[in-house]
Amino acid sequence: MPERRRADAARNYARILAVAEEEVAVHGGAASLEQIARVAGVGSATVRRHFPTRHALLEAVSRQRIEALRVRARELAGADDGRTALLTWLGDVVAYSATARGLAAALAYDAGPDLVHGNSCAQTLQDAAAPLLARAAREGAVAAGLTGEDLVTLVVGIVLATEHRPDPAAAADRLFRLAVAGLSPEHRTATPH
Amino acid sequence: MPERRRADAARNYARILAVAEEEVAVHGGAASLEQIARVAGVGSATVRRHFPTRHALLEAVSRQRIEALRVRARELAGADDGRTALLTWLGDVVAYSATARGLAAALAYDAGPDLVHGNSCAQTLQDAAAPLLARAAREGAVAAGLTGEDLVTLVVGIVLATEHRPDPAAAADRLFRLAVAGLSPEHRTATPH
Repeated sequence: MPERRRADAARNYARILAVAEEEVAVHGGAASLEQIARVAGVGSATVRRHFPTRHALLEAVSRQRIEALRVRARELAGADDGRTALLTWLGDVVAYSATARGLAAALAYDAGPDLVHGNSCAQTLQDAAAPLLARAAREGAVAAGLTGEDLVTLVVGIVLATEHRPDPAAAADRLFRLAVAGLSPEHRTATPH
Repeated sequence: MPERRRADAARNYARILAVAEEEVAVHGGAASLEQIARVAGVGSATVRRHFPTRHALLEAVSRQRIEALRVRARELAGADDGRTALLTWLGDVVAYSATARGLAAALAYDAGPDLVHGNSCAQTLQDAAAPLLARAAREGAVAAGLTGEDLVTLVVGIVLATEHRPDPAAAADRLFRLAVAGLSPEHRTATPH
């Protein structure tokens, strides 16, 4: 491929992905490939050349978002208070996920490998959470034994269970805060059963 | 229909439903209608007469389980400690749901009306939870403003997010207990953001 055509292709790819991210934020997994092509100013054939299936496109959008969250976790690692850093990051994960239904489903059902560092999306998020979680744990600010897998799984669950609400982001945020504070934290030694 | 044929039909219906419940507990939403017919000792045509679609069968299994949980909530209303009663019941909801993947999906995506008291499954569970929740709230044992919708949505989310784990019931139970105790309950006045 000549260099100019390679540059055109890269620009088209970036533009399609940026438009796809906005469409997914509004319409979730139901985002229309035709609409994405129209807004990006390219033909459907060009969209399909870069993203042969709807699944491939949703996966690319997810990876882009996951990458942004990974960068955000690194920024927050320098914050003053470990608890605030961890909870702020998790709040961002909830907010991102709640506006991208396809992302939550992809995370929950993610089985195969993913292109972000050869890991699955969920694994990438867990790795990003690890330093924040370790610091909050050292400061005694989280439940004993809490793992990154616990955090990511709970966020995925909250997003999946609220995605059909009129305001999914608000519903997810409410449940996330309840789980952070505890539904019934008073007598924590008296566990059910 | 002659009385004897009506009695036969009712007996077949009950037997198919009981077998379906066991198959769904093992295989989730992927339970085979052919296998259910074989174990129940009826023909596939009989299964299809009572349950024209897989969805109709899963719905009937869900309703049966929801009804059992409704009865259980009434039994627990008489327990000594409101918090233990509520958490025991919610633990039962988690355990039931975790063994029936179709149930969790049906609850999360439940849009149309349902035959249990003309309500949706989620609404029926919320109504069943209401007296337990009201009592626990009076005893100051739950987060301020906690609603039955919060509880049911969180349980549904936990079950959806753990249904692909090797041991979904154990994974769901772990997350449920974490959410009850709180991921980070220490400084509850310092909320994120």
